[in-house]
Amino acid sequence: MSGLLGVAVLGAGHMGADHLRRLDRVVSGARVAAVADPDTERAREAAAGIDGVAVHADAEAALDAPGVEAVLIASPGEAHEEALLAAFARGLPVLCEKPMVPDSAGALRVVEAEARLGRRLAQIGFMRRHDPEYRRLKSLLDGGRLGRPLMLHCVHRNVSSPPHFTSAMLVNSSVSHEIDAARWLLGQELTAVTVLRPRPSTGAPEGLLDPQFVLFETERGALVDVEVFVNCGFGYEVRCEAVCEAGSARIGEAHTMVVTAEGGAREEVPQDYLVRFADAYDREVQEWVDATRQGRVTGASAWDGYVASVVAEAGVRALETGVRTTVEPAPRPALHAPS
Amino acid sequence: MSGLLGVAVLGAGHMGADHLRRLDRVVSGARVAAVADPDTERAREAAAGIDGVAVHADAEAALDAPGVEAVLIASPGEAHEEALLAAFARGLPVLCEKPMVPDSAGALRVVEAEARLGRRLAQIGFMRRHDPEYRRLKSLLDGGRLGRPLMLHCVHRNVSSPPHFTSAMLVNSSVSHEIDAARWLLGQELTAVTVLRPRPSTGAPEGLLDPQFVLFETERGALVDVEVFVNCGFGYEVRCEAVCEAGSARIGEAHTMVVTAEGGAREEVPQDYLVRFADAYDREVQEWVDATRQGRVTGASAWDGYVASVVAEAGVRALETGVRTTVEPAPRPALHAPS
Amino acid sequence: MSGLLGVAVLGAGHMGADHLRRLDRVVSGARVAAVADPDTERAREAAAGIDGVAVHADAEAALDAPGVEAVLIASPGEAHEEALLAAFARGLPVLCEKPMVPDSAGALRVVEAEARLGRRLAQIGFMRRHDPEYRRLKSLLDGGRLGRPLMLHCVHRNVSSPPHFTSAMLVNSSVSHEIDAARWLLGQELTAVTVLRPRPSTGAPEGLLDPQFVLFETERGALVDVEVFVNCGFGYEVRCEAVCEAGSARIGEAHTMVVTAEGGAREEVPQDYLVRFADAYDREVQEWVDATRQGRVTGASAWDGYVASVVAEAGVRALETGVRTTVEPAPRPALHAPS
Amino acid sequence: MSGLLGVAVLGAGHMGADHLRRLDRVVSGARVAAVADPDTERAREAAAGIDGVAVHADAEAALDAPGVEAVLIASPGEAHEEALLAAFARGLPVLCEKPMVPDSAGALRVVEAEARLGRRLAQIGFMRRHDPEYRRLKSLLDGGRLGRPLMLHCVHRNVSSPPHFTSAMLVNSSVSHEIDAARWLLGQELTAVTVLRPRPSTGAPEGLLDPQFVLFETERGALVDVEVFVNCGFGYEVRCEAVCEAGSARIGEAHTMVVTAEGGAREEVPQDYLVRFADAYDREVQEWVDATRQGRVTGASAWDGYVASVVAEAGVRALETGVRTTVEPAPRPALHAPS
Repeated sequence: MSGLLGVAVLGAGHMGADHLRRLDRVVSGARVAAVADPDTERAREAAAGIDGVAVHADAEAALDAPGVEAVLIASPGEAHEEALLAAFARGLPVLCEKPMVPDSAGALRVVEAEARLGRRLAQIGFMRRHDPEYRRLKSLLDGGRLGRPLMLHCVHRNVSSPPHFTSAMLVNSSVSHEIDAARWLLGQELTAVTVLRPRPSTGAPEGLLDPQFVLFETERGALVDVEVFVNCGFGYEVRCEAVCEAGSARIGEAHTMVVTAEGGAREEVPQDYLVRFADAYDREVQEWVDATRQGRVTGASAWDGYVASVVAEAGVRALETGVRTTVEPAPRPALHAPS
Repeated sequence: MSGLLGVAVLGAGHMGADHLRRLDRVVSGARVAAVADPDTERAREAAAGIDGVAVHADAEAALDAPGVEAVLIASPGEAHEEALLAAFARGLPVLCEKPMVPDSAGALRVVEAEARLGRRLAQIGFMRRHDPEYRRLKSLLDGGRLGRPLMLHCVHRNVSSPPHFTSAMLVNSSVSHEIDAARWLLGQELTAVTVLRPRPSTGAPEGLLDPQFVLFETERGALVDVEVFVNCGFGYEVRCEAVCEAGSARIGEAHTMVVTAEGGAREEVPQDYLVRFADAYDREVQEWVDATRQGRVTGASAWDGYVASVVAEAGVRALETGVRTTVEPAPRPALHAPS
Repeated sequence: MSGLLGVAVLGAGHMGADHLRRLDRVVSGARVAAVADPDTERAREAAAGIDGVAVHADAEAALDAPGVEAVLIASPGEAHEEALLAAFARGLPVLCEKPMVPDSAGALRVVEAEARLGRRLAQIGFMRRHDPEYRRLKSLLDGGRLGRPLMLHCVHRNVSSPPHFTSAMLVNSSVSHEIDAARWLLGQELTAVTVLRPRPSTGAPEGLLDPQFVLFETERGALVDVEVFVNCGFGYEVRCEAVCEAGSARIGEAHTMVVTAEGGAREEVPQDYLVRFADAYDREVQEWVDATRQGRVTGASAWDGYVASVVAEAGVRALETGVRTTVEPAPRPALHAPS
Repeated sequence: MSGLLGVAVLGAGHMGADHLRRLDRVVSGARVAAVADPDTERAREAAAGIDGVAVHADAEAALDAPGVEAVLIASPGEAHEEALLAAFARGLPVLCEKPMVPDSAGALRVVEAEARLGRRLAQIGFMRRHDPEYRRLKSLLDGGRLGRPLMLHCVHRNVSSPPHFTSAMLVNSSVSHEIDAARWLLGQELTAVTVLRPRPSTGAPEGLLDPQFVLFETERGALVDVEVFVNCGFGYEVRCEAVCEAGSARIGEAHTMVVTAEGGAREEVPQDYLVRFADAYDREVQEWVDATRQGRVTGASAWDGYVASVVAEAGVRALETGVRTTVEPAPRPALHAPS
């Protein structure tokens, strides 16, 4: 493909606006062709200063705008299914923010629709697959030097949870990143989940079960444990240690500057996922643009988005019932057969 | 007390010989008065170069040797109960290597015998309580700056397991250190235990369930997880992270020298607990000698030794049954009422 | 400016080819309009797969190619003066790889030519100013929290030097990065330089004075010391510690993954400046493109390029004479008055 | 030797009192036999609780007290020469705090007196030789894995200087530790010294040249640079990096606990040399006691004490004159011929 890839961005909220800026100012080989948001004023503001952007209230109208060759979905999760199906109907490649579809039934409909098309159009925004640290870990594990992975110890901490965050959301929103990352790092499916509920922190809102400790079993007997603590107060911390037969590797303790002052040597901890994963978002979109221009999909697939939903739903049941819960996804379509 | 504390050392194996050297060469205020081992040749070798040591085959004979004012038990675990009762019968203060007594019924008999005496004579060799890193962590937690502890994430790795190591021993020998350390750090009892069994490492001997992942619940709702992996191949690694309401603290990543060569910056990992905890052993024995000369017991008590046995036995049942198992100790005697 | 910035790249060697790829694949808002290299075959290869690039043997022809709006100079240093003057003559903004001009007399002619134009067109490729670590350090120093900087301790190590590397080049090629970084970090001019010559490493080629230890004094009394060691064998290591009145800050010890295996915990050290500063190059060119589209110059200026030459020449004299040598630049033109 | 080594401690100030406690409570194989201080009240207080200690106003009287077999000199530096000569006259082994004798002429008299005796009795309290980190570095360098050392980069920082600290004392008191450590680590003599004087920190007392940057050259062409900054405000920091032909090794960045709270990951920096080198002092005295009981001297010798004075005096001249100053010690007596 010559020329710049014309992208329609659906959603002009926090995430959509960030992607608009990224497509316009950071990413090479793409241009914003259209933007859609029911709040057109917000869409107009987010697109200010970008040339030649058609602003629409309606998502489908944006998909039909002149020059649109691909779609980036950053609207609320409830709007994703319809947007994905609309993109498929037009044969448009799409990068869809996570969750692909909030419920697994809807997610399965998306997988089936893509399977009927017979070719892959969707990539899901699990940005950790594009983070340099996760990449190095993946590459180390794949290289085999440390032998077979036995356990992943994961930590996922936020300074504080947004309003209306529920106990279930620790599993189906926060931990969904670890669900995808574990599947990707290990190349294995998660088969069962157990959720432990330590006594909540007094720093968490009344009624929120925070922290939680989530345990996943994999198809080939590895164990994945995740501390999720969304009101830890002190920073945004995402760590992962892969314990293998011949060694262990840890990421998430990176630092760039050590300041020694007032009695201590200090390394800053990022406060926000947009800081910690800034690079990952940039690379995710750049790689999506590059692959799309070559007619390929290289990131997390619709199938990955569906499986993440299924596992997250099992996790929420495990949280609610207190017992180990097995994960039972629908059969994998041929389109998504493992390579 | 003026003069040096005369100590009888029971057992002249690996650990006993190390304590003999320590009492003679490292610790201030004590001297070795007697040593006992059924293998008197081994005892004589271990005591070579130390003046005025009576060598005995029989433990009780050593306790009765002239100048003996205290006892250090480093004989095999099966001999501990008899040795402790013999020391109590003579009113001798005793430092007993862990496990205090291998089974909880025997351990309870020791607790009861001491309770009948009406004064505390026994200290158990949980050396982590004397390790500078654990001390700093304990002091930080007690200081309250980080708020209430919510979780402890522990890692316990050995290069390789000794011959005849069984799956149960991962819990009742290796993890017994974490059992005591968790109770001491948190100031809470452990109330239930669950053991997860990832697929074993191919580096472990045939039939050994290694690694294991052990989960403890505490009386006030904290969670303690322990990865125990005794054939990790690469080093002796003991780490602990305390996650609290207002921050987290990690120990076990200490290093003293960074060597940059051949493409990497490298910090050595100790290969052996005698290296990692060399200091802790020295301090343990020094503090025991100092306290004993002042007629006090300051380290882990017989009660702590008993509870560690009860929890470890529950852990072994949890390992064997695969289900969560509650911990049910006998009532705590008044002698060991919490201060 | 709407549309993409058309850039002519001069030089298609290692660095030029890397910049071609960067402009085409990484940077947003620009496109390669022309490329020039006396070896047109090499130029053609480097530009393969990039649409619409005019390939020329002659630099001036490339500047005159249709659509050229800016110039990136990556030809050998000896060709820079002529290329810069040609760009100035056409009013083209230019990003010139370091050294701006190898000798300070030529560098001064460039400064004077730009001053005669009355507006700034040149930016010099001191990429450390765009490195995230250096940026954080600069921002910390500027913020004033650590007080006035007193000393900079710098380390600059390469695995091995390229063929024909001379003792003088340790100062005027390698250390020139520290010269610019020190001026930029401190906001102060360097006024004198002394070079110490430890006994050379047997790992260095016969006759090369490697390592060297270079000391700079600044106009307000700070001290900058630089270990430069270009045959250190083990990695590419660039570190900088700023010692201030109320604390110290260190960069260059960043790591992203700790691998524990075979007795040690290991962090990889990059082997190459293109790895260590990959991000810095990307940002440098992106920021230059962004600023150029807005008609501004924001990076290191022609004046900075000239001063680096003057200091480096003083450094080479100091190396050769063994004595402290003062730095005596020409007066600063009004165009480059400090803001 | 059987029984405990009877030690006379001269000086009951801060350091003397610390050594009294150490000999009584920490070190194995020794006992305090006598203590001397012109302020006998202070001596009595420092020795309170230690059995059988003769308290004297006069140093020589203490040396003649019953049971005295060795001497630890912790009196002010001006009293050292007389005390050392008195110990030599009685054939008593002696551990003398640094500086051995404040001026090199006096130090030489001590060396000559010991040479006349024909056997070594004196050990000088350069405690870094006993610090575990320095030991590991020494052992790495001696092992040869990193090749020949080319440079040592040293940092020596104190929170604040004591009253009446002079600019010369940065060299002859603070840096004297690096002088001895460099000679010991490298196994080479220092042949010349240059002192650079950055503009003083506003945190330093008026008139004190603080920090300073001291450069030593060695007999075989290595370079040793030392930042000494005694009013750095933030901690007691002693670091050393040995740059060798095949790698580099750094000590002094050790940490034991990482606390993540309030936006950062923090490692404590000790505030005081008694904290940083607590272990080193304990080991120094223990090793001295052990060696003395075997009739040997294993630590820094009187010759090392003398050379440290000569180098420090050259350093003070270099500071005052601003020029490179050569170091010219007297000939080395046969008694101190290198092994």
